[in-house]
Amino acid sequence: MNIGFIGLGVMGRPMAQHLIEGGHTVLLNRVKDVSQHLVEKGGQAVATAREVAEASDIIILMLPDTPDVEAILFGSDGVAEGLSSGKTIVDMSSISPVATKELASKINQLGCGYLDAPVSGGEGGAIAGTLSIMVGGEQSDFDKVLSVFELMGKNITLVGGVGDGQTAKVANQIIVGLTIGAVAEGLLFASRAGADPAKVREALMGGFASSKILEVHGERMIKRTFDPGFRISLHQKDLNNALSAGRSLNLPLPATAQCQELFNTCAAQGDGELDHSGLVKALETMAAHKTAGEA
Amino acid sequence: MNIGFIGLGVMGRPMAQHLIEGGHTVLLNRVKDVSQHLVEKGGQAVATAREVAEASDIIILMLPDTPDVEAILFGSDGVAEGLSSGKTIVDMSSISPVATKELASKINQLGCGYLDAPVSGGEGGAIAGTLSIMVGGEQSDFDKVLSVFELMGKNITLVGGVGDGQTAKVANQIIVGLTIGAVAEGLLFASRAGADPAKVREALMGGFASSKILEVHGERMIKRTFDPGFRISLHQKDLNNALSAGRSLNLPLPATAQCQELFNTCAAQGDGELDHSGLVKALETMAAHKTAGEA
Repeated sequence: MNIGFIGLGVMGRPMAQHLIEGGHTVLLNRVKDVSQHLVEKGGQAVATAREVAEASDIIILMLPDTPDVEAILFGSDGVAEGLSSGKTIVDMSSISPVATKELASKINQLGCGYLDAPVSGGEGGAIAGTLSIMVGGEQSDFDKVLSVFELMGKNITLVGGVGDGQTAKVANQIIVGLTIGAVAEGLLFASRAGADPAKVREALMGGFASSKILEVHGERMIKRTFDPGFRISLHQKDLNNALSAGRSLNLPLPATAQCQELFNTCAAQGDGELDHSGLVKALETMAAHKTAGEA
Repeated sequence: MNIGFIGLGVMGRPMAQHLIEGGHTVLLNRVKDVSQHLVEKGGQAVATAREVAEASDIIILMLPDTPDVEAILFGSDGVAEGLSSGKTIVDMSSISPVATKELASKINQLGCGYLDAPVSGGEGGAIAGTLSIMVGGEQSDFDKVLSVFELMGKNITLVGGVGDGQTAKVANQIIVGLTIGAVAEGLLFASRAGADPAKVREALMGGFASSKILEVHGERMIKRTFDPGFRISLHQKDLNNALSAGRSLNLPLPATAQCQELFNTCAAQGDGELDHSGLVKALETMAAHKTAGEA
């Protein structure tokens, strides 16, 4: 199958490589030094997003945010100019669920399918081909793309109609951010009360407090290893999506708003490019507390 | 070994039964109709806490809150009156870590050991003998009691010195409460945005959002099964312990405070005796939203 892949960043490069290694003809644009190896492995470089779309049955996007997706689809020399009936757009970026429904509608009017399919699992998951993929759209489009998804991910779910993949991703980022806050506040309490937070974390694993976040991010807080991982600045973008969507849906999200303020505190003190487990440093600042790791 | 067990409530009864079945001589007081079966199985009823202490090497307490423990230890005909040098007090209640250090100091002055050993796992864990037990105190006292703990629990950790068991329990209740809030806000967002929260929960399991709470309490929110489980009113007591200790430690706990306010909202609307997953109903009230379960 001819597959276009637009967006060769930290995530996109290993994802595209899995498609090439899976035997597909993969069309690429904007190939730079860091993505030149994809051409050497068999990827076909063209000049524009329009040319990618012209030559591909499925066009995958992996871009930073909503305006980037809008521009690459409907800008000059963009994807829409190269589409013909029967092709499928697969947006694997993490963008607004509200904007997604509008974009899908415009693509559908061109006779093409649209899936939103954001991922979680980070760079590690992209390299290992073990991303979780949350998909919104029609069952028939999902069936058409499933074998392609399986080259990049493991836990692949058709959540519902168009936009529901992005909605699931926003829910994911809400839960992850707030669980980091939960673990940070619990371990900081333990530390300030004079207990060893590493021993407390150990005692709590296996019970109702247990989570992937207590396991991974709790350990980062204790060992003070805040190299990303997933950056606070990206989580701020995702929670901004959550809060904007919440406002347009008349849905109060009090804990999400508070979590975003803690990330804003991190940014204020120059910690915006740390891993999101660094949220604990905002609480430490409020508490005039040296570290969550001190016993 | 002769073991005293004081506090034959919902948790205490099955815990004491495991000790009797483990071959120990178990001294009981305040035996009522609901605990009569423990005497039939071999437990020895006496009249007062003082008499329990006189006849036992280890005296276990399983009581509701800090004042109950203070009264049973140092009140008239209480445990302290029956102690002699070399006995060990094991407080398995969930009470204040600050008060615990004072109580332990007074017990130590009588020549006796003191362990704080609160549990998590609820009535189900007590019946199955699979409680998590978080212990604070001296290694030598822990070694003396370990085989007794093993009759009641599975994940048994000596967290640190006296009080550190209670500190770990408070940290546990902070993390559990806030993770319930995280899952509630994420699933409510999904629902209000038009996705099926059951499908979203499924898509998120296995990734960084995964937790025991998403698994168990997330399902309760979706299926609207709010019979306890662990009651909101008890979680309010635990978060009150957390916030009181935080105040005395000069430690701000902003997310814990917000979570307590949501539990207070539940209590205000008559939901205080629901399972703590019912926290989602406070958010639904704020959002004028029928249920988190509606698709």
